[in-house]
Amino acid sequence: MTQQWVYRFDELDAVEETVGGSWEDVRSFLGGKGANLFEMVRLGIPVPPGYTVTTQACNAYLAGGGAVPEGMWEQMIAALESMEESTGKKFGDPDNPLLVSCRSGAKFSMPGMMDTVLNIGLNDETAQGLTKLTGDERFVYDAYRRLVQMFGSVVMGMPDEIFEEVITAACRKAGVQSDTELPAESWKTITKDFKDLFRHYTHHRFPLVVREQLKLATEAVFKSWNGKRAVDYRKAAGIPDNLGTAVNIVAMVFGNMGNECATGVALTRNGTTGEKRIEGDYLTNAQGEDVVAGIRLTKDLKELQVEMPSAYAEFEQIAQRLERHYRDMQDVEFTIENGKLWMLQTRDGKRSAQAAVRIAVDMAEEGLISKKEAVLRVSPEQVDFFLHPQFHPDATKAAKIAGRLLASGLNVSPGAAIGVAAFDADLAETWAKKENKQVIMVRPETKPDDVHGMLAAEGILTSRGGRTSHAALVARQFGKPAVVGVAALSIEIAKRQMQVGDTVINEGDWLSIDGTTGEVFTGKLETMVPDIKDPNLIKLLSWADEFRRLGVWANADYPADARRAREYGAEGIGLCRTEHMFFETDRLPLVQKMIMTDLPVEQKEALQALLPFQREDFAGLFRAMDGLPVIIRLIDPPLHEFLPDPMELLHELADLKIRLQHATSLAEIDELLQQVKTRETVLKRAETLREANPMLGLRGVRLGIFIPELTAMQVRAIFEAACEVAREDVSVHPEVMIPLTSHVNELKVQRSALEVVAKEVMQENGVEIDYKFGTMIEIPRAALTADQIAEHAEFFSFGTNDLTQTTFGISRDDAEAGFLIDYMEKQILPNNPFATIDEDGVGKLMAMAVQGGRSINPDLECGICGEHGGDPESVKLCHRMGLSYVSCSPFRVPIARLAAAHAALEEMPKK
Amino acid sequence: MTQQWVYRFDELDAVEETVGGSWEDVRSFLGGKGANLFEMVRLGIPVPPGYTVTTQACNAYLAGGGAVPEGMWEQMIAALESMEESTGKKFGDPDNPLLVSCRSGAKFSMPGMMDTVLNIGLNDETAQGLTKLTGDERFVYDAYRRLVQMFGSVVMGMPDEIFEEVITAACRKAGVQSDTELPAESWKTITKDFKDLFRHYTHHRFPLVVREQLKLATEAVFKSWNGKRAVDYRKAAGIPDNLGTAVNIVAMVFGNMGNECATGVALTRNGTTGEKRIEGDYLTNAQGEDVVAGIRLTKDLKELQVEMPSAYAEFEQIAQRLERHYRDMQDVEFTIENGKLWMLQTRDGKRSAQAAVRIAVDMAEEGLISKKEAVLRVSPEQVDFFLHPQFHPDATKAAKIAGRLLASGLNVSPGAAIGVAAFDADLAETWAKKENKQVIMVRPETKPDDVHGMLAAEGILTSRGGRTSHAALVARQFGKPAVVGVAALSIEIAKRQMQVGDTVINEGDWLSIDGTTGEVFTGKLETMVPDIKDPNLIKLLSWADEFRRLGVWANADYPADARRAREYGAEGIGLCRTEHMFFETDRLPLVQKMIMTDLPVEQKEALQALLPFQREDFAGLFRAMDGLPVIIRLIDPPLHEFLPDPMELLHELADLKIRLQHATSLAEIDELLQQVKTRETVLKRAETLREANPMLGLRGVRLGIFIPELTAMQVRAIFEAACEVAREDVSVHPEVMIPLTSHVNELKVQRSALEVVAKEVMQENGVEIDYKFGTMIEIPRAALTADQIAEHAEFFSFGTNDLTQTTFGISRDDAEAGFLIDYMEKQILPNNPFATIDEDGVGKLMAMAVQGGRSINPDLECGICGEHGGDPESVKLCHRMGLSYVSCSPFRVPIARLAAAHAALEEMPKK
Repeated sequence: MTQQWVYRFDELDAVEETVGGSWEDVRSFLGGKGANLFEMVRLGIPVPPGYTVTTQACNAYLAGGGAVPEGMWEQMIAALESMEESTGKKFGDPDNPLLVSCRSGAKFSMPGMMDTVLNIGLNDETAQGLTKLTGDERFVYDAYRRLVQMFGSVVMGMPDEIFEEVITAACRKAGVQSDTELPAESWKTITKDFKDLFRHYTHHRFPLVVREQLKLATEAVFKSWNGKRAVDYRKAAGIPDNLGTAVNIVAMVFGNMGNECATGVALTRNGTTGEKRIEGDYLTNAQGEDVVAGIRLTKDLKELQVEMPSAYAEFEQIAQRLERHYRDMQDVEFTIENGKLWMLQTRDGKRSAQAAVRIAVDMAEEGLISKKEAVLRVSPEQVDFFLHPQFHPDATKAAKIAGRLLASGLNVSPGAAIGVAAFDADLAETWAKKENKQVIMVRPETKPDDVHGMLAAEGILTSRGGRTSHAALVARQFGKPAVVGVAALSIEIAKRQMQVGDTVINEGDWLSIDGTTGEVFTGKLETMVPDIKDPNLIKLLSWADEFRRLGVWANADYPADARRAREYGAEGIGLCRTEHMFFETDRLPLVQKMIMTDLPVEQKEALQALLPFQREDFAGLFRAMDGLPVIIRLIDPPLHEFLPDPMELLHELADLKIRLQHATSLAEIDELLQQVKTRETVLKRAETLREANPMLGLRGVRLGIFIPELTAMQVRAIFEAACEVAREDVSVHPEVMIPLTSHVNELKVQRSALEVVAKEVMQENGVEIDYKFGTMIEIPRAALTADQIAEHAEFFSFGTNDLTQTTFGISRDDAEAGFLIDYMEKQILPNNPFATIDEDGVGKLMAMAVQGGRSINPDLECGICGEHGGDPESVKLCHRMGLSYVSCSPFRVPIARLAAAHAALEEMPKK
Repeated sequence: MTQQWVYRFDELDAVEETVGGSWEDVRSFLGGKGANLFEMVRLGIPVPPGYTVTTQACNAYLAGGGAVPEGMWEQMIAALESMEESTGKKFGDPDNPLLVSCRSGAKFSMPGMMDTVLNIGLNDETAQGLTKLTGDERFVYDAYRRLVQMFGSVVMGMPDEIFEEVITAACRKAGVQSDTELPAESWKTITKDFKDLFRHYTHHRFPLVVREQLKLATEAVFKSWNGKRAVDYRKAAGIPDNLGTAVNIVAMVFGNMGNECATGVALTRNGTTGEKRIEGDYLTNAQGEDVVAGIRLTKDLKELQVEMPSAYAEFEQIAQRLERHYRDMQDVEFTIENGKLWMLQTRDGKRSAQAAVRIAVDMAEEGLISKKEAVLRVSPEQVDFFLHPQFHPDATKAAKIAGRLLASGLNVSPGAAIGVAAFDADLAETWAKKENKQVIMVRPETKPDDVHGMLAAEGILTSRGGRTSHAALVARQFGKPAVVGVAALSIEIAKRQMQVGDTVINEGDWLSIDGTTGEVFTGKLETMVPDIKDPNLIKLLSWADEFRRLGVWANADYPADARRAREYGAEGIGLCRTEHMFFETDRLPLVQKMIMTDLPVEQKEALQALLPFQREDFAGLFRAMDGLPVIIRLIDPPLHEFLPDPMELLHELADLKIRLQHATSLAEIDELLQQVKTRETVLKRAETLREANPMLGLRGVRLGIFIPELTAMQVRAIFEAACEVAREDVSVHPEVMIPLTSHVNELKVQRSALEVVAKEVMQENGVEIDYKFGTMIEIPRAALTADQIAEHAEFFSFGTNDLTQTTFGISRDDAEAGFLIDYMEKQILPNNPFATIDEDGVGKLMAMAVQGGRSINPDLECGICGEHGGDPESVKLCHRMGLSYVSCSPFRVPIARLAAAHAALEEMPKK
């Protein structure tokens, strides 16, 4: 028995018998589009008759080197006959011709494959017959020329422009503005011209035998599976090559056969806000393409309710049914042919981040999906969008209608940006920094030399390059919205202008780019920042909290940050960087005094003066975090960071000396000499403190060992503050964190010295504080000897920034805008390891440290306070490693909460 | 039955019955000194009668809180009676008194414990009796006062000076220069004065009951086991606290009872050269102490042969017998009392490094020991001495006799140094650098601020501090001879002088310090550099080679180095640093041109010009290493290292600009402007290349990826050179080493690009070369992902310098003279991890890497090319890890060969 390659839309039972009942397997077999059509037929929804040639047929065809698998063609003919039966039309019959469309449909939606050929079945005879039947010659020849055009471009690979030129010429000749105004006669001529063009270009006649049209179109879909763009796409998206594509043959229905006809698209809920209301656009007497292309002013679906109330009522009911059936918001296409509603497609609808959140929450509350599913429906990256400006959806819509959509490219770094075009990095920087302009930097492509301009710009736009191009990587790196690879853009640096079609943009003209969608607009579009306090988001996150096991804490240096973090759901402070407080203007002089002096007495004075500042800072933090743990890291950076840069001092000294030579009064000389002296003193100290590699120098715990008075002051401040707020009935849980430990003895020495201070303060105040001492794990050696270190630490906190630097031997400051970008462009590194934890290297060390530490103390609190704590992939890794919490910037707390829930849910068995 | 606490010297059989026959156990039981006395008695060698109170008695005494264990005292009395029997004298009998010595003797020789009390058994009556018996009142009262003095200082803890002051006063009173001239009467008075002093100081009478003397002395020895100095010493030396000390009671024999008496010490071979000849010193009619103290002009042992031929003959025979018995060179003490030879002690003799080598080789060739034992008898550290200047032994001896030995201190950093005393770091540096003087830097103790002076000095001398003091650590760090903690030295910085006793040394006076022995001399001593080509050393090393499994290669950048390395036994070049060649004067301009240009053409020209230089260097290296592998590392340092320092350029620019303002001619202005321009161009480039942390910046493989032309040129040079020498019939085995890999993709990309070049060159030349491509493992991530990396590397070479920097997060340049010293002083780090591999951290990573790499390729060649490759402890660790080879500086190759043999032998079962 020959294999069954072809299934009618009403044969879902047979399909399930063959491949089993799982939706996955059905989709693999029939492709996504086909499977949905079968499903709709089973639900009794009006779908034009048709059938699907399976993905297995495609695979057999390709494996056989392009020979149609045995029986496939015969089965297609049989299925066609069944369509003829149910429609009462006949394929190729001039009296009542059946027309069909041929569409590809793989398991996953995939650009780069042959898409659609409409109106198959038209030839000179059936066209005449159809004209007779409909009495609408214009409609028929418009349809016929579309077939020739699509067949030429889609099946035979002819450039679409040559067809468009013919139409443009015809419009000129007929003296009309738009092809909608062309009379029937013109379309007839155009059809003939198209067929000539076809012959000229392909050296074949346009196939007039309708079965040949069908066969060629089907084979073209099969072949397009192995087209270069499709293969590249699969490679990039990680889609297996052996899936194959199905082919869907559907009877044509027409929305453009008169005023009883219409065609439209709709979403079952609002795709921007998520509101539960069917929304869509339609056109009366039009082709579906015209709606989708967005080039004609469409009507709101609400008007259809008035125009064709019964068709609309049926449509509304079907849409709701589909949503309930698929348990997700649907994106549907429909056509009304002479008052009869046909559903052409349904699929899960695309939606904005806000809509995703609201839809997930609403559906869970409607009982349509579970809370778990709701949580999984929103990706952590979508929560990120709540933090960045976006173009207002109405503004985007209006701009498109106004023809201000310039072009589209790759959406490589999300967010909206507005600025004037600057065609080189230096100008971008000058305009941004000196003239305070908002700038979009525009280049054919970017190079390392351009980075300073990119950093100064609001957004980045290039005409070349892909998702891993230099421009894309730098943009993502620094959170700049970017659209790259906009091929339509022709940039002429020399002329300081760029062009798309006829539109010319001069340097200095306003542009708006949407890094989320990849769209580029002329002029300024209105932006909006979504509300992170969106009540739906808050609800969704509270559900996420029910599922996650990983704690989410925040990094905060000031009480205001701590309050925000808490508001966003942080369950503790994982990192307070005490040195940030040192840089404030009223404190820096004291810090510098402490560093500059050689006299212990002066040093002590300076530290004494700093103490109340630190105490006040800590007290504020403790009050904000009443009841929650607060990890305070002792001073970390090398001391020279608090002094001016020696190079700058040298420049200043050179200037001063030249001025000295021109000084005219004794007073001036005195004044200048004084300035020279001050700078020389600072310079000398700064040069003494200067280190070849400060990242690896006298910092962290080393400072505490070298200047014990400094960390002792900090610990005194912490515990004085704790005692103070404890008396205010605040529940205070300080955790003192010692940075940069590499050898257990460092920790031992520092901790024992500091714990003495802590106990002293508590005794002085007669208050007992619940406290911990612990350490950062941010040096490979600490991770490697975690068992030893755990003997002296009550908690570990991974400083993954430094740990990544030392594990890779890479200085982030030097590399991140430099060779790291080069590495990602060349795909030497899959990701920026400073954004997402490098699992093989840094992750391995972390896992070793957790294991080593917990082998000594099974309850050891292990967290992460590097920037990775807010990166969803890294959060998931931390969950898998069994960390106690991640700590991240307050703004990223919601993202981390959701990512942690996903990590926990992904471990559970499905459903 | 009470336990036996006391054994007579002739009871070795009984001891062995109790503790078993192993020499270890006997030594634990009787202490080292006692065990040797028992052994001599068994051999029939004349030893004065005596007995040992066991270490177990000591432990029982201490455990019992100071109560003499049951039966011990009675057993001591019984043993004493046995001594009375064999000597015919009686303890406490005025008619013929038995005198005994009491000495401590633990298993391991240990300073800080009570040492010796002589002449126990003397009191007013026995002194009179002995006077009658010997007719030598002077001898008797000299002996009596010695008993009181030793009892006072050693047993009762009185300061020795107060006794010395009495003798000095007596000399003054008697009008004599030295106490040897004091008459009997004076000694009688002194004895009385000593007893008064004793009573005054201790509030006890000097014990006149002789048994009480014996008991108190014995208990004092027991107690001294828990004295502070002994406890500290054991802690530092890792000696267990529960060993206890034995007490040896020996009948006194006297070398000072007339001209038929003598006393002396001897080594069975020459302790300096190792020559096989008994050598020693003796004095006729003298006490043993006088010989040991080295204060009197002793006679060469050869004279004894003439003076007392039969006693000498017996002594010589005994000495040889002891050497054969103990299978090692012996250090013996003897006394001849009225013509009768008594052996008082034997132990393994101390020896110089040269002597150790020669003795080990000679004894192996004499069949006395095996080759294995010979190899184990010489420590790798001793081989190090062959590389450093030492004082000539004759010069040392002469200087001592001439009274030029100023003082002794701790020998913390070996080698001899001569220089003028400088009392501060700045002066030391100025004298050394500006005036080209040899300087010994002298300080009470040193601080981090002194390091620049210490580095400029030949040697370092301090009056305070111990083995882990700042001075000791810095000195060892930088290989400077040093003697520290010379308490006798009184330094007065203000006066710019120091004093020992009456000797005053002014700043600028010559000093000679011996860091090997801890001795300090006035004036200049002759030095010598031992010969590393010593034939005995060569033989010993060839034996070592028979045992070791670990290969020993050398790091060499030039052919001359490679030849030396090969001469010293290197089996390959483990590291040739190609960039060193770039710094040579004829090449640096080309390198700078390559860096400065933005034009690919100019860059290519510069690289083309460098190629022949590199080719020539490599060809020389290959010729020198004919038949052996040569690992060449591609360029590693960041490019800015080849440009001038920006700070210096800034200083120069400031100067030039000032000069410009004063320029008087147009020509001068032109010239200066030109200079400004050049510097500004270089400065701009240097500032672009400047990195915050160059150690972690654009270097190593990153350079090769960034400027592929650079490493391609190097690989071309390597293979062109290889082809050239292969045609000369040289067997050439280049191994191309890619530095600083952290991610396998770096290696993959570089290697595949470079292997193309290699193959191209071989094809051009029609020569097939046996080559490898591999990588440094010097970044933690590389070690952690070694399995991935081994897929693309044919060898691993651990760069332990960088690996230590990244594993610890420590920049060696910044830390090694800075906080690392502080860390070692504070014992936070046990060692400098840049000198000896940190086993817990860096070693763990290395072991992981070896395991990971060999899991993919079991034959993977794994070596080490960091400086640790020449450190004996690190070599042993590398052996245990199963590395293929260590590579070190050519000079350290012999050390590594011996250390590798030790590592292999230490794994074998003993003997």
